[in-house]
Amino acid sequence: FRLTSLLAKGVYNAAFPLHDVSLDHTMLQEEWANYGVFFKYQPVDLIRRYFGEQIGLYFAWLGVYTQLLIPASVIGVIIFLYGFLTVDTNVPSQEMCDSMLNFTMCPLCDRVCDYWQLNSMCSTARASYLFDNTATVAFSLWAALWERERERLYSSVWDLTGLEEDEEDLRPEYEDALLQKRQKKSKAKKKESLTWRDRLPGYCINISSILLMVVVTFSAVLGVILYRICVFAVMSMNPDHEAKANVRVTVTTTAVIINLLIVLVLDEIYGAIATWITELEIPKTEAAFEEHVILKAFLLKSMNAFAPVFYVAFFKGRFAGRPGDYVYVFKDFRMEECAPSGCLIEVCIQLGIIMLGKQLIQNNVFEIAIPKLKKMYREYKEEKQGDQEEEAEDPNREPQRWDLDYSLEPYEGLSPEYMEMVIQYGFVTLFVASFPLAPVFALLNNVIEIRLDAAKFVTEIRRPDAVRAKEIGIWYNILSGISKFAVITNAFVISFTSEFIPRLVYQYLYSETGTMHGFTSHTLAYFNTSNFKPDTAPSETQFDRDLRICRYKDYRDPPWSPQSYQLSKQYWSVLAARLAFVIFFQNLAMFLSMLVAWLIPNVPQSLKEQVKREKAALMELLLAQEPPPLSRPKDADDSSPHI
Amino acid sequence: FRLTSLLAKGVYNAAFPLHDVSLDHTMLQEEWANYGVFFKYQPVDLIRRYFGEQIGLYFAWLGVYTQLLIPASVIGVIIFLYGFLTVDTNVPSQEMCDSMLNFTMCPLCDRVCDYWQLNSMCSTARASYLFDNTATVAFSLWAALWERERERLYSSVWDLTGLEEDEEDLRPEYEDALLQKRQKKSKAKKKESLTWRDRLPGYCINISSILLMVVVTFSAVLGVILYRICVFAVMSMNPDHEAKANVRVTVTTTAVIINLLIVLVLDEIYGAIATWITELEIPKTEAAFEEHVILKAFLLKSMNAFAPVFYVAFFKGRFAGRPGDYVYVFKDFRMEECAPSGCLIEVCIQLGIIMLGKQLIQNNVFEIAIPKLKKMYREYKEEKQGDQEEEAEDPNREPQRWDLDYSLEPYEGLSPEYMEMVIQYGFVTLFVASFPLAPVFALLNNVIEIRLDAAKFVTEIRRPDAVRAKEIGIWYNILSGISKFAVITNAFVISFTSEFIPRLVYQYLYSETGTMHGFTSHTLAYFNTSNFKPDTAPSETQFDRDLRICRYKDYRDPPWSPQSYQLSKQYWSVLAARLAFVIFFQNLAMFLSMLVAWLIPNVPQSLKEQVKREKAALMELLLAQEPPPLSRPKDADDSSPHI
Repeated sequence: FRLTSLLAKGVYNAAFPLHDVSLDHTMLQEEWANYGVFFKYQPVDLIRRYFGEQIGLYFAWLGVYTQLLIPASVIGVIIFLYGFLTVDTNVPSQEMCDSMLNFTMCPLCDRVCDYWQLNSMCSTARASYLFDNTATVAFSLWAALWERERERLYSSVWDLTGLEEDEEDLRPEYEDALLQKRQKKSKAKKKESLTWRDRLPGYCINISSILLMVVVTFSAVLGVILYRICVFAVMSMNPDHEAKANVRVTVTTTAVIINLLIVLVLDEIYGAIATWITELEIPKTEAAFEEHVILKAFLLKSMNAFAPVFYVAFFKGRFAGRPGDYVYVFKDFRMEECAPSGCLIEVCIQLGIIMLGKQLIQNNVFEIAIPKLKKMYREYKEEKQGDQEEEAEDPNREPQRWDLDYSLEPYEGLSPEYMEMVIQYGFVTLFVASFPLAPVFALLNNVIEIRLDAAKFVTEIRRPDAVRAKEIGIWYNILSGISKFAVITNAFVISFTSEFIPRLVYQYLYSETGTMHGFTSHTLAYFNTSNFKPDTAPSETQFDRDLRICRYKDYRDPPWSPQSYQLSKQYWSVLAARLAFVIFFQNLAMFLSMLVAWLIPNVPQSLKEQVKREKAALMELLLAQEPPPLSRPKDADDSSPHI
Repeated sequence: FRLTSLLAKGVYNAAFPLHDVSLDHTMLQEEWANYGVFFKYQPVDLIRRYFGEQIGLYFAWLGVYTQLLIPASVIGVIIFLYGFLTVDTNVPSQEMCDSMLNFTMCPLCDRVCDYWQLNSMCSTARASYLFDNTATVAFSLWAALWERERERLYSSVWDLTGLEEDEEDLRPEYEDALLQKRQKKSKAKKKESLTWRDRLPGYCINISSILLMVVVTFSAVLGVILYRICVFAVMSMNPDHEAKANVRVTVTTTAVIINLLIVLVLDEIYGAIATWITELEIPKTEAAFEEHVILKAFLLKSMNAFAPVFYVAFFKGRFAGRPGDYVYVFKDFRMEECAPSGCLIEVCIQLGIIMLGKQLIQNNVFEIAIPKLKKMYREYKEEKQGDQEEEAEDPNREPQRWDLDYSLEPYEGLSPEYMEMVIQYGFVTLFVASFPLAPVFALLNNVIEIRLDAAKFVTEIRRPDAVRAKEIGIWYNILSGISKFAVITNAFVISFTSEFIPRLVYQYLYSETGTMHGFTSHTLAYFNTSNFKPDTAPSETQFDRDLRICRYKDYRDPPWSPQSYQLSKQYWSVLAARLAFVIFFQNLAMFLSMLVAWLIPNVPQSLKEQVKREKAALMELLLAQEPPPLSRPKDADDSSPHI
């Protein structure tokens, strides 16, 4: 009988190693699980000795990751300050705020909305510029390289410590299923194992569940979009002028908060579903089970967290149509658009609120409040049990170590910790081009998180089993995949979400003076108000009733050209420039990271030599009894496989 | 004293191992160095036993590479046949050949050239279609994946056989330089080595030499371009109508042959220069020396071989200007352009002639003719020496093994063999999108090459020193780099060199019928003949003197539009589509290769288990004397490095 089966059957209540109240434990409390020393390095060796390698590796990785956030944060803050200091010398946002330039914009909704002046959105334009400037582009390139470099250093360190893997124990569920299979089959093969045919039902359920979850996520995003559209339309009908001015901000903020709540709820649901469907897959070993659960949970949770941001960055506003030919949802509501200064500021807000909200709520609620509640519940339950059971021993005896430990929270594995950090890593890297302050928030969070986790491990949960682990496992692959994907997302964010490319194209291709003057007018197309669809023109207007022309943000031919309202030449040239930039950025990042890998050796020479010495010492230890001729294993010709 | 120094000083004439006329040698001759068995696998094990691992690995790699060319060749031939069979149903080339559609094209040179009808270039258009069709696009994607898969299999096999590297012997030149350095410095450090400061003069010469060679290569390409322009202009002045019709073909063919000769000559020069400049760098070990020479030689030789092809594929015709505003070279000669059917057929011709010419001439001249000449020269020299020297032994004695071997060619290393194959690999992969038959020619060449090299090694050169080598070394990195680069070049060839994207854009964006009809007219812009620059219009013409409009291949606005002759909207939309395709192709290839790597395990399970068993056997051999507790080396906790 395995211990796990006995626990499952209720024969035993719990089985766990005891905390060792030794010098180690006290030192851990003073040197590690202590907010006062947040600026010091973690005592990784001590952690490894006490908790085992797997947990030691987690904290070591977390420490390195947090340290590497420091340069990124510093540079992010500098970038932000640069934007802050140059916002007044930036011509496009100046033009948008200039009351002399009279841009009358087309109404934002049908009938009840009036024309409006562009300079009423002045503050949004200036806020946009804080993030949408040239320095951010350079920062994203640097961040992409930093990511790849970091990943490379990790991989080289993990490779050095590799030893042969143990033969894996099979999972009990797998053995049961295998037994069932053997009983069914008439002829018993020698090397029977569950083939993909046996697992086919499990695979089908897996794939369909994942697809269903994907659909749920997209529906959630769609739901929030519809919410925004409807609320925007309803609030626009409000005749109160003051309320109308704040419509956009109100709608955006409430929508993001709803998004955040949905993300948090779905997060928990997806975690449970991932575990359930992996059970159905009957993986062979515990390691395989862990890996599959992690992969599926990560897939679902990351999609859940990033889908709203992807929508705002790449899709919002691109299907809105044009005046006289808008795209409608539910026949009456217009498809939503971004502010004329661009979508970048909205990506920023979305990203900031989801990232910070997730961190704050998950830290406070899930890691502090809920364990406290659970603890209170456990204590309450024990008091009740204590009253009911007879005390087998002296009621006045001192509570033993096992009593104290029994009242602690059971250890739940490292996966939730890793998952939270990896999703945060995704937030930081995938959209660093739109939100350079992301590393700062991640850094602040992590500094607290390390000590929070440390206190939890030392004083609030039962001592975990020490598990040997030579690497962080599947998480390394996931981090590596995120780094690669981040190059593409940042390229597209700079190219398609920000106004960087249109500004460049204007300055070097269409500007008559060679400067940025006239840029705002260049980005606004003309619309002849007589071309409004019937019953969509503003019913009341503060402007001249004979207003002939209103402007809208798009690259289309003007009404007086032969192909009125078609996508103009400027549209195609800007699109070509955007695509060219993506190719350039992606290949430049790959080339530079190869160059850096070639110039800077993979592993520092000192570390390489230290490992060489240790491996040599190991070999000597093994060969201490061998006669000299066999002491060079590489002379054993016949053991090398033939090519 | 080292043997190499004694040889260099002339104390000894030669030092080499003798051919072992045993069963092995005879079997090698029959089973390997024999054109009759070209379809059989090579006896790699035998080669390895006789010649050592390094040479065994070369032939093994060559065998695997050639085998993997077979599927690529089959598919390439199928693609070509597909083009062949559908050339008549292809609308664009039909339209170009249609005599009903009357496209009068603008003259190809000033004054002396007349207008011409598009359907006179009918055969070129049909030939273009043979390679420029949709099937080729799919083939390039498959080829890109096949490359990455192959590379992955290689890397996994080489990794399995890895053992610790030996301590390297230092090169004598390095030790001399180190000695000089120590004598110069007053304080002798314990661990003295040549730093980058000591090597600085060497590095400077290296960098400037390489840059100089790059300039030489570009000048050679430029020279051929100028040759083509001038000859084209001169031949166009020929009043003979027959000669004029063949002008383009003549010019192209002669230019390519000149290119080929330049490539061959510079190839040899670059090889020698690469060795010389690496000597100046004073690398530390022989292995480092070899690596640096190979890298530099490869850089220069590949640039030399591929630069003309790159020019024709991506730059030819793009700087020619437009009628009324041509770009001139030497004031009178117009910059060259491609045929109206596109540049792809010229890339094809360039590639085919350089690749085949290089193979034929290098095989026949350098690997057969020159060794024969050298052998004749050596025999002649020996006869003279034989006459002059006194015979120390019985003149009637049988020539001993060492006499026979002394008359053979000295062994010159594997680098020239690898270099030839790797450059061929570059030809096959970098431009497979334009020349799907390249694998076929490579396959034919290799099948002969293997037996040619086999015969050379067994019967025509002295027996090489057997060198242990666990992998093909720096060549693997080079091949890997070529594979990665091939994805980008093929994406750009399909996108920018072929007419695939313009056809797609026309069909889905501009075609009124949704078919390809009208495509040719869509790609030809209009020019008003009164806009010719003075004295550039045709002096005599077979056409109507009042001809108002001639066509030219470009996307520009017509003379009657407000922005006459500016790049039109179609130009920008086609450019955007081309760039979008590059992004799509590149990322699709990366994604598919990751998917394939994930679905198909790195190494076949059987091979993995075989290696595991062999490693286990090795460990058991080493530990045969050890008491059981130490038999699991992974229990030695203290030897694993701390993270």
